[in-house]
Amino acid sequence: MAILNPSEMLSVALEQALIGNEEGGVPVGGAVFHVDGTLLGAGRNRLVQEGNGSLHGETDAFRAAGRRPHWHDTILVTTLAPCWYCSGLIYQFRFRQIIVGDSVNAQGGTKWLREQGIDILDLHSQECIDLIAEFQQRRPDLWNECIGEV
Amino acid sequence: MAILNPSEMLSVALEQALIGNEEGGVPVGGAVFHVDGTLLGAGRNRLVQEGNGSLHGETDAFRAAGRRPHWHDTILVTTLAPCWYCSGLIYQFRFRQIIVGDSVNAQGGTKWLREQGIDILDLHSQECIDLIAEFQQRRPDLWNECIGEV
Repeated sequence: MAILNPSEMLSVALEQALIGNEEGGVPVGGAVFHVDGTLLGAGRNRLVQEGNGSLHGETDAFRAAGRRPHWHDTILVTTLAPCWYCSGLIYQFRFRQIIVGDSVNAQGGTKWLREQGIDILDLHSQECIDLIAEFQQRRPDLWNECIGEV
Repeated sequence: MAILNPSEMLSVALEQALIGNEEGGVPVGGAVFHVDGTLLGAGRNRLVQEGNGSLHGETDAFRAAGRRPHWHDTILVTTLAPCWYCSGLIYQFRFRQIIVGDSVNAQGGTKWLREQGIDILDLHSQECIDLIAEFQQRRPDLWNECIGEV
């Protein structure tokens, strides 16, 4: 099996985000890989699709990856910088690395995570940045609900 | 409708934890109430039951509560002090108050949450404390998996 590079891993998460966008959902996608490059699970924000605000791109990918004794040998990929909720997931489960597509439209807990020693690779993907920027402008109601802001 | 006091709210979460224990799962329960005392949702850790490590007592209760524009007018109850993952949920969504049953067997992000100004009421429930202490001793493998520790 070919080992994916970080950009290819991000593409898996971005594909999920684009599916979410088509579904009328919040277009954030995530994926979990073993450090050997094996895809363990991919997911997307499903606030709209399942009426479930606990499913962000990261947590849905974590759910899809199923059970593991620990996550220290895995990489979590997300199209958008993790909010504080997903930053909590990251800090609790200590993924080996976090790969982020967009940290322009939201920063969440990324600064705090770096201060705690979490390895975050920010790919600054224009496609991810444009996707969320368009969504935030088109659906501010849904964006605010997703992050619990009034 | 009778307005529940904090101990009664904790009983709702504890009932969930006891169901989880019967199911062979991690015995942590949660509940979300409106500040007016209305129960919005209750849940329990379902790592074992659904093979889903993203469902802690708190996040399962949050899922059960469905969609809301924001959570600033709600109370989150948990039988066990929130781990960092659930502390992230709390910090992101800014529940009005957090009610905790047991902070003896785990502390998670409670100290940090208090430093951020989150209102945490610790009821120091002996029933909650005993439940988790027994579980941690009986199933250290499952406890460690639940919090992602080796």
